[in-house]
Amino acid sequence: MIIQLLLTGNELMSGHTVDSNSAVIAEKLLPFGYRIHKKTTVGDDRTLLISELTNMIEQSNVVIVNGGLGPTVDDLTAEILATVLKDELEEKKVAVEHLTEWCARIGIELSDENLKQAFLPSLSQIIPNPIGSAVGFYAIANDCLVICTPGVPSELNAMLDESIVDLIIEHFPLNTRAYTLRLQTYGLGESSVQRLVNQELSDWPESVELSFRAGFPNLELKISVCSEDDIPLQKHWEQRLRDKIGDYIIGTESCSLQECVIDLLRTHGKTITTIESCTGGLIASQLTQIAGASDVFEAGFVTYSNSIKQRVVAVDEHLLAQHGAVSEEVVLAMARGGLELSSANYAIAVSGIAGPGGGSDEKPVGTVWIAWGTADKLKTMQLVIKGNRLWFQKRVAAICLDLIRRELDQIESEPLYLARNRPK
Amino acid sequence: MIIQLLLTGNELMSGHTVDSNSAVIAEKLLPFGYRIHKKTTVGDDRTLLISELTNMIEQSNVVIVNGGLGPTVDDLTAEILATVLKDELEEKKVAVEHLTEWCARIGIELSDENLKQAFLPSLSQIIPNPIGSAVGFYAIANDCLVICTPGVPSELNAMLDESIVDLIIEHFPLNTRAYTLRLQTYGLGESSVQRLVNQELSDWPESVELSFRAGFPNLELKISVCSEDDIPLQKHWEQRLRDKIGDYIIGTESCSLQECVIDLLRTHGKTITTIESCTGGLIASQLTQIAGASDVFEAGFVTYSNSIKQRVVAVDEHLLAQHGAVSEEVVLAMARGGLELSSANYAIAVSGIAGPGGGSDEKPVGTVWIAWGTADKLKTMQLVIKGNRLWFQKRVAAICLDLIRRELDQIESEPLYLARNRPK
Repeated sequence: MIIQLLLTGNELMSGHTVDSNSAVIAEKLLPFGYRIHKKTTVGDDRTLLISELTNMIEQSNVVIVNGGLGPTVDDLTAEILATVLKDELEEKKVAVEHLTEWCARIGIELSDENLKQAFLPSLSQIIPNPIGSAVGFYAIANDCLVICTPGVPSELNAMLDESIVDLIIEHFPLNTRAYTLRLQTYGLGESSVQRLVNQELSDWPESVELSFRAGFPNLELKISVCSEDDIPLQKHWEQRLRDKIGDYIIGTESCSLQECVIDLLRTHGKTITTIESCTGGLIASQLTQIAGASDVFEAGFVTYSNSIKQRVVAVDEHLLAQHGAVSEEVVLAMARGGLELSSANYAIAVSGIAGPGGGSDEKPVGTVWIAWGTADKLKTMQLVIKGNRLWFQKRVAAICLDLIRRELDQIESEPLYLARNRPK
Repeated sequence: MIIQLLLTGNELMSGHTVDSNSAVIAEKLLPFGYRIHKKTTVGDDRTLLISELTNMIEQSNVVIVNGGLGPTVDDLTAEILATVLKDELEEKKVAVEHLTEWCARIGIELSDENLKQAFLPSLSQIIPNPIGSAVGFYAIANDCLVICTPGVPSELNAMLDESIVDLIIEHFPLNTRAYTLRLQTYGLGESSVQRLVNQELSDWPESVELSFRAGFPNLELKISVCSEDDIPLQKHWEQRLRDKIGDYIIGTESCSLQECVIDLLRTHGKTITTIESCTGGLIASQLTQIAGASDVFEAGFVTYSNSIKQRVVAVDEHLLAQHGAVSEEVVLAMARGGLELSSANYAIAVSGIAGPGGGSDEKPVGTVWIAWGTADKLKTMQLVIKGNRLWFQKRVAAICLDLIRRELDQIESEPLYLARNRPK
């Protein structure tokens, strides 16, 4: 079973556009046991497209062409497929109806340029596009299923879900499919998890596949089996893994740190406030990305200068003078001031040196103090986070959210990132 | 002159990793007149790699192989190239020295796995890697220059700049190269600029290429010429374009809205504060991403709930009761309260309905009020921004920064986005 992708478009060749469509196609096909054998990317060049498509049809069971369905002269896919099929373009009634409806929906007139998108190889069948103007289409050429798809990611995505995956299954049914559990973790590297599995779960069975996807800031673990019969085994090994690294697991599916924190606060009926210096509002911004954040978040303070730390969250000027803004005393005072002013239950306060300027021998760039918890029980931590300014800010924000998550979840163990980033 | 890319790695086939390396290679080569003819991506499969590389060498002047230089058994590039060259792997002294030095630098022992990276085709030459453990290498096969590069983006990037581009120029010198001016704009679409050029600058010469790169939130315009002699012409047409759309230009090169705002504030010796409801700290966070933000930014307030709007920035509760939190009266009061509390010269205050909940017939999801300016002269604007929550927040933050940019730059004209997003 060979599946190839043909990605088309000058923008993919010039570096103007990074192709994410092929990753989406691969991800959507994988659970059903289909793997992409080879991907080829070429510009909008008629001769090259014809020769590539011809070769691919000879070599493959399925060819997915992505891009070139638009209304402009550069959009060659229908014409290329017709040439390869020794077929003609004809106006497809279903496609004209779709275009008419689409134009009415977005309030424009159907132009000749748009109408071009309804001229498709006569031997092809339409694949509905629930979002955009260009329908997809497919044809059988030399026993190979050729599927032509739009380059717009949201349209491709919807069409994969609604018809394309089914179309492939219908033409080339496989007996295998993958059942995958996804766990989101924070604070562990891929190699640490792999080492742990090798050493402490060394009887991990071959029929359960463990794979990783390093996002930022999460590391996603995928636990997959290829047969429904193996699902109990999958669940057993998920539990064995949870027993080892449960403290690092923030959720399943696509759960983010901020979602997890907001869910935990909501469950406990508690609210939170942020008092940020070096992260400049990033933590507040991440929390308020989540719909319903207002249930648990009322106030955030970006106290960037010393005078604002004094005036807004009542940090004593003597503390600032004696210990400096990046100190345990000051982050504690920031947390207390923020809790007082906002009446929130929990606070995260953070002050550090994001760089590139502002470092010293005693407090180098990357030094950060964090205070977190409730008015009764504030904890503090000093870390040194290396990297550029943006990386520092993102990393510190993630650590702050994780510390609050651990507090809310009553996790006692010390996260690995503490030991790794302790000041020397 | 045919250049092909061979991208290798199972992670590129499974959808786990989106390839951005090929875009970087294309971008670095383009200014020197080199274009990528075709890209092929395959997994870590020995047979497939050998057949692809063999075909590519037959068809091309230059083949750039990316990936597969690491220490693991999946990393096959050196072995594949040796096979195709009918050559043997040998331990390269320069590579061993590099690995020894690299291990010493990061404080680990040189392992056998790492040492594998020094076994390269005997006919190949080393390409230094200033960052990582894997050196690159190249060889001539059948008059084709084959260059093997690491998959780690930062390493590839450094090696392109330091040696690989020069290596290609040395082997296949071209007489053309491109000279490109980049302008960053906010608030214009590609089609608007293209229409303006067609209609109002219809004598735009063919020797000056205008191209676009849609980022978010910026639209980048590139004005390129292929000969040094055309640089005056390029500058002339840049000026003609600036005369038409100057109000939308925020800077050159990679300038961002927040950088532009911070530069303008610094130039004028002024400071700014943010009072954010629906954007939840995103504007403050974007400003403080920029090194040196502390010169112009001391305080930001995330006043997410009504009670915090009252308590922190002294919004009158009657205003809230009478007009609601998303109203002109309330954003004006937020701006005044923030200016008072922070002593800043300029304020941005924003309150809106990010959704998905919270909308009404009168104020649908997407409604937002913005107040901006100085205590003496505050302006306000109501917009309706359609899209999901994250898009809404990012779009509103960008508009707020652009409004302050226009204020600081004393731009009188009304931006197009105002007319397009006015409430109905």
